[in-house]
Amino acid sequence: MDNFTFYSPTYFVFGRGEEKRAGEMVKRFGGTKVLIHYGGGSAVRSGLIDRVKASLEGAGINYCELGGVKANPRSSLVYTGIDLVRSENVDFILAVGGGSVIDSAKAIAAGALYDGDFWDFYSGKAGIEKALPVGTVLTIAAAGSEGSGDSVITKEEGMYKRGAGGEALRPKFSILNPELTQTLPAYQTGCGITDIMAHLQERYFTNTDNVTTTDRMIEGLLLAMIDVGPVAIDNPADYEARANIMWAGMMAHNNSCGVGRSQDWNSHNIEHELSALYDCAHGAGLAVTFPAYISYVTKMAVSAIESGSQDEAIWERRLKRLSMWASRVWGVIPDGMSDEEVITEGIRRYRCFLKRIGMPLTLGEVGGSEADIDKLADTGCYGDGRSGYMYGFVKLSVDDVKAVYREMIM
Amino acid sequence: MDNFTFYSPTYFVFGRGEEKRAGEMVKRFGGTKVLIHYGGGSAVRSGLIDRVKASLEGAGINYCELGGVKANPRSSLVYTGIDLVRSENVDFILAVGGGSVIDSAKAIAAGALYDGDFWDFYSGKAGIEKALPVGTVLTIAAAGSEGSGDSVITKEEGMYKRGAGGEALRPKFSILNPELTQTLPAYQTGCGITDIMAHLQERYFTNTDNVTTTDRMIEGLLLAMIDVGPVAIDNPADYEARANIMWAGMMAHNNSCGVGRSQDWNSHNIEHELSALYDCAHGAGLAVTFPAYISYVTKMAVSAIESGSQDEAIWERRLKRLSMWASRVWGVIPDGMSDEEVITEGIRRYRCFLKRIGMPLTLGEVGGSEADIDKLADTGCYGDGRSGYMYGFVKLSVDDVKAVYREMIM
Repeated sequence: MDNFTFYSPTYFVFGRGEEKRAGEMVKRFGGTKVLIHYGGGSAVRSGLIDRVKASLEGAGINYCELGGVKANPRSSLVYTGIDLVRSENVDFILAVGGGSVIDSAKAIAAGALYDGDFWDFYSGKAGIEKALPVGTVLTIAAAGSEGSGDSVITKEEGMYKRGAGGEALRPKFSILNPELTQTLPAYQTGCGITDIMAHLQERYFTNTDNVTTTDRMIEGLLLAMIDVGPVAIDNPADYEARANIMWAGMMAHNNSCGVGRSQDWNSHNIEHELSALYDCAHGAGLAVTFPAYISYVTKMAVSAIESGSQDEAIWERRLKRLSMWASRVWGVIPDGMSDEEVITEGIRRYRCFLKRIGMPLTLGEVGGSEADIDKLADTGCYGDGRSGYMYGFVKLSVDDVKAVYREMIM
Repeated sequence: MDNFTFYSPTYFVFGRGEEKRAGEMVKRFGGTKVLIHYGGGSAVRSGLIDRVKASLEGAGINYCELGGVKANPRSSLVYTGIDLVRSENVDFILAVGGGSVIDSAKAIAAGALYDGDFWDFYSGKAGIEKALPVGTVLTIAAAGSEGSGDSVITKEEGMYKRGAGGEALRPKFSILNPELTQTLPAYQTGCGITDIMAHLQERYFTNTDNVTTTDRMIEGLLLAMIDVGPVAIDNPADYEARANIMWAGMMAHNNSCGVGRSQDWNSHNIEHELSALYDCAHGAGLAVTFPAYISYVTKMAVSAIESGSQDEAIWERRLKRLSMWASRVWGVIPDGMSDEEVITEGIRRYRCFLKRIGMPLTLGEVGGSEADIDKLADTGCYGDGRSGYMYGFVKLSVDDVKAVYREMIM
């Protein structure tokens, strides 16, 4: 296990009706003038924004507001938010929505205290040293942004999707009321479940050995999603299923089960280009990407071992980990099967599950086509500039990334 | 799932050599004059206290010190600590040790800012509103006090062991270096593993339905302990096993997998009288208590169902939960067996595991005898005064508690 620090100082308020405590929580964390940041009209129509305003008024807190955040939140609205925060002397940002709204709020919070262009944080030109305090009222269980220090923004020019992070971005509080997710359509619910499971798997596929405690935690959270996910799809109003998904969504991404180990994140990197180019939901893009990625990595491993690669031992360990995932998470009994066969069966079950919760499985289903593969692969975020590699569980060249996209055509 | 709040703002610094950051961390959280609180001579002899002092000196922080904390930490040393803190103008308490040292430090931290007798917090006469900041350098993975807001102290007069808790007691930081636990003897290691598993099971045995996410997390952490526990017993210097146990110990008790559900804690309550009266290690007492308790609860359930209790449905659910524990944690395949048979086999495997890690299984092995049972049961902590009941997964009368103690005689 590697040395690490873990700091998750967000105050979580979980349960029915708890958005009524928004004002109390802003006050607790020192806010006096709030920017309420939200997405489309549903938060307004449902009366949620009014309830949040009433809670702030009850606590004697002034506010202004900025709606209009889209899925794959855009840089242009972040600039608008930064201007508004400065002109209105806002000292606390309250995100009311899902991961996109929270990520946009975090970008505004960091950008408002920065002299340069906030995109510097996302292009890697600058690190986030400070940010205005952010609170959240979560309406979609998926991104885990309510408990993380991460934010992903899409720049309109070129539709680049990039992430930034820092301790200063951890929300001061997050209000998680599962009732607010009961009106989500099945498709968005499925996207959320897929994203949560992807966050767990990005941590599971590690090159660090002897991380049993976090392995078992991740498997447990995945098993819980396999259990309650279809319940929420079949009956969107099921409070208990929603509650289990909502807490898992936070646990999957606040990193308590990702500490002390290398992590993967290749699937997220590869997916980002899908949702940026086709504007599909991030979760839907992950449903297409993650099984394709595992399938390609398995081929890489088998090929490296067969060709007597000098890294044979590392590839063997990777194969064992993928096989452990297939058997412990997807229940494949490895009796008499090779690791490759166990993994292939695991991928098949993973895809069956994704289909069961209404997710797409192919590039075509998210609006993509084979003709775009070169462009998708070339636009990707490579560690070392465009000519470099993606580094995660395995190292991927641009050609490898193209091959992963090709695995999405079935 | 019940409404809840979860707030775990402790900064964890984990890994080899990290005690060197003690000074930096005290400074980060505003300490200027530290009380270094520790136990016996081993922390001094090993050089750990000197390394901590060097780290504080490097950060320009003054300190005084108070050693001598025993297992089952005593109220008398807490009074000494409170006097010292006041006379030396200490503004930060640094616990260097295991759960007993940390619990003693927390009691001093709360007592120093309280006008009355600190025991008021532990007797239930007063709630903890404020406390001096506490940091920890953990040397034993067991109690989870490094990430919790709880503290347990034993009052010498009568040897009563009582707990107190509050948000103010959560450590500001905790340094977890698994190397510091590599010199622990196998017996203490076994006690720690037993305590960690007990913290998980006290949360697992709930009367709240539909808590799948936290169920699977708890099972995962228990499975990890079953996997790595014997490795640490057989080879105390195994860093990786130690690291897994250390992180699990924190996760087991910071409540991230105990939220939104009723919890049990009857076994801890029943055990406290064992370690108070016989001064045995808490973990050893739990090894004797927990299987006996599960065994007795199973008998209560079977008897209630057979007698057609009006609470039959509740008892059926309890039996199902115990049976789930036996099959998911201990691998009992329930094919063709009654719930009672599955649980009985689970208890047998639990005891085999406890024996494997060197734990006692009977009252006699911790120095007790049948003749003490009335006294043990009468001294217990009942919710409603001495004439009341213990409330947890099940409600226990004094006679029920006597019956649990009798289950410890095999």
